[in-house]
Amino acid sequence: MESIKIKAPGTVANLVCGFDILGLALNEPCDIMEFRLLDEPKVIIHNRDAYNLPTDPEQNVAGVVLLAAIEKAGGTIGFEVTIEKHIKPGSGLGSSAASAAGAAVGANKLLGNRFSTDELIQLAMIGEKLATGVKHADNITPCILGGVTLIRSILPIDIVPLASPDLYVTVVHPQIEVRTSDARQILKQLIYLKDAIKQWGNIAGLVAGFMRNDKQLIGRSLEDVIIEPVRSILIPGFDEIKAKCKQAGALGGGISGSGPSIFMLSETEQVAREVGRIMHGIYERIGVENNVYVTTISNEGVRVVEHE
Amino acid sequence: MESIKIKAPGTVANLVCGFDILGLALNEPCDIMEFRLLDEPKVIIHNRDAYNLPTDPEQNVAGVVLLAAIEKAGGTIGFEVTIEKHIKPGSGLGSSAASAAGAAVGANKLLGNRFSTDELIQLAMIGEKLATGVKHADNITPCILGGVTLIRSILPIDIVPLASPDLYVTVVHPQIEVRTSDARQILKQLIYLKDAIKQWGNIAGLVAGFMRNDKQLIGRSLEDVIIEPVRSILIPGFDEIKAKCKQAGALGGGISGSGPSIFMLSETEQVAREVGRIMHGIYERIGVENNVYVTTISNEGVRVVEHE
Repeated sequence: MESIKIKAPGTVANLVCGFDILGLALNEPCDIMEFRLLDEPKVIIHNRDAYNLPTDPEQNVAGVVLLAAIEKAGGTIGFEVTIEKHIKPGSGLGSSAASAAGAAVGANKLLGNRFSTDELIQLAMIGEKLATGVKHADNITPCILGGVTLIRSILPIDIVPLASPDLYVTVVHPQIEVRTSDARQILKQLIYLKDAIKQWGNIAGLVAGFMRNDKQLIGRSLEDVIIEPVRSILIPGFDEIKAKCKQAGALGGGISGSGPSIFMLSETEQVAREVGRIMHGIYERIGVENNVYVTTISNEGVRVVEHE
Repeated sequence: MESIKIKAPGTVANLVCGFDILGLALNEPCDIMEFRLLDEPKVIIHNRDAYNLPTDPEQNVAGVVLLAAIEKAGGTIGFEVTIEKHIKPGSGLGSSAASAAGAAVGANKLLGNRFSTDELIQLAMIGEKLATGVKHADNITPCILGGVTLIRSILPIDIVPLASPDLYVTVVHPQIEVRTSDARQILKQLIYLKDAIKQWGNIAGLVAGFMRNDKQLIGRSLEDVIIEPVRSILIPGFDEIKAKCKQAGALGGGISGSGPSIFMLSETEQVAREVGRIMHGIYERIGVENNVYVTTISNEGVRVVEHE
């Protein structure tokens, strides 16, 4: 195989109570990445978007992953990659994770699938580190594996694919900036044990709900008493959107990743679309430009769309 | 039905990382309780043990549950109960929960099963409140339902039966006193967010492991970075027992409830018995009297053994 074209999906990390450990893959938006194998150890990047992302491989999320993949593969080959970015950077929908995971999987396919899943995640985390300063894996893992995934532990890496529940996901991305580093800094380093106990009840309930496809249990467990009360103050309209979407029948939801996107899970497409209209309407009224996606949980992660 | 004899099993609460939310039922030890329906609203208690437990129903764990059941049932009937206690009070094996849950279920059977599971748990929590000062349900719930259970929330009550994995449980009860109230008081009220994140990764892994019967995942997830490091200082020999039992092949384990009992889960009876010998040997060497149980997870909770 000389070249390959893949789609790398957007992802929702944290899933309300599962801060830093849970994530799910979306069917849209997706980035499209086209890779060509080179016979010398270098990386050439073409960005097809309006985001002014760097083309220097050392400064580019996909670039650093590809450089690491080249080194890991013995340093004799290289990659030319064209990235068509549809997941807006800073949206909270795993834009950097899609670049990083897409690069790891794309390189791996062209190298004859020589890396294990754990190695792919390790490679992709190099890209996340460049983008966010932290080697977190809660977007990367569902991006690579699809469905809902658990990162039980980062050191050592321990990934548990949980399930691919048939749920609709509505996401609104308000065009405001919440930097991941800011969203991390406002978190309290110390929390109350009693709140942590509430949180772990909800995490356990959410995991059980996903594994059993018990939608009411999923809905009841989508509650976050620790992160959301702090982070949601950075997102205008958050409380109103959450309340009105649940009134309209959404099972529940919250901040996607570190925001500013907000996601809601629903059992039917009809509810998911109504939820989208509510989200859009509230941001229109507040005067914040926004994009709404109505999609489903993707049961596959990065997928090949073409190869030669 | 005029009389009934039931067995109420011992239980292991917390399950290492699942502080206050997880518990499992054991096949032994069990309390045996015999109930007779009375035609006037009173409670008569006979204790068949050496523990000097109160016979005044207002002061007895089973007594307060029966009084509440009488009131809930309209106040016209009463109960005479004989309690043969095999689960030692203060062992950390759910002795008070067995009395409370056994009383709730026994009364319910004699009253034609008029209470729902949630009502049974609410009734039994009255007994736990008397015994420990706290209305916790992590022993009561597995005692009533069997298997491994999750208490997602206490207010409102939300119980999720998880699974009945085919695991062996070895328990050692060292004859030292750790009062539940003391074990609670030494806990820190504030914990680090980074520790909480580790903990919820393990809780999610443990729940997934139980539901999938994935024993290696259960083993990896039996890690507690918050409660155990504090509470284990009250239990002599704890670290040595844990390390040596894991070396001998146990999947993992920790403090049962608030201690002093220690439990270990194993895949085979052979390992479970070897674990029991190790536990016993260490306490012999330290000079602490101890009882060891090698048993399995019970897939039923309180069960009827005789009725008339």
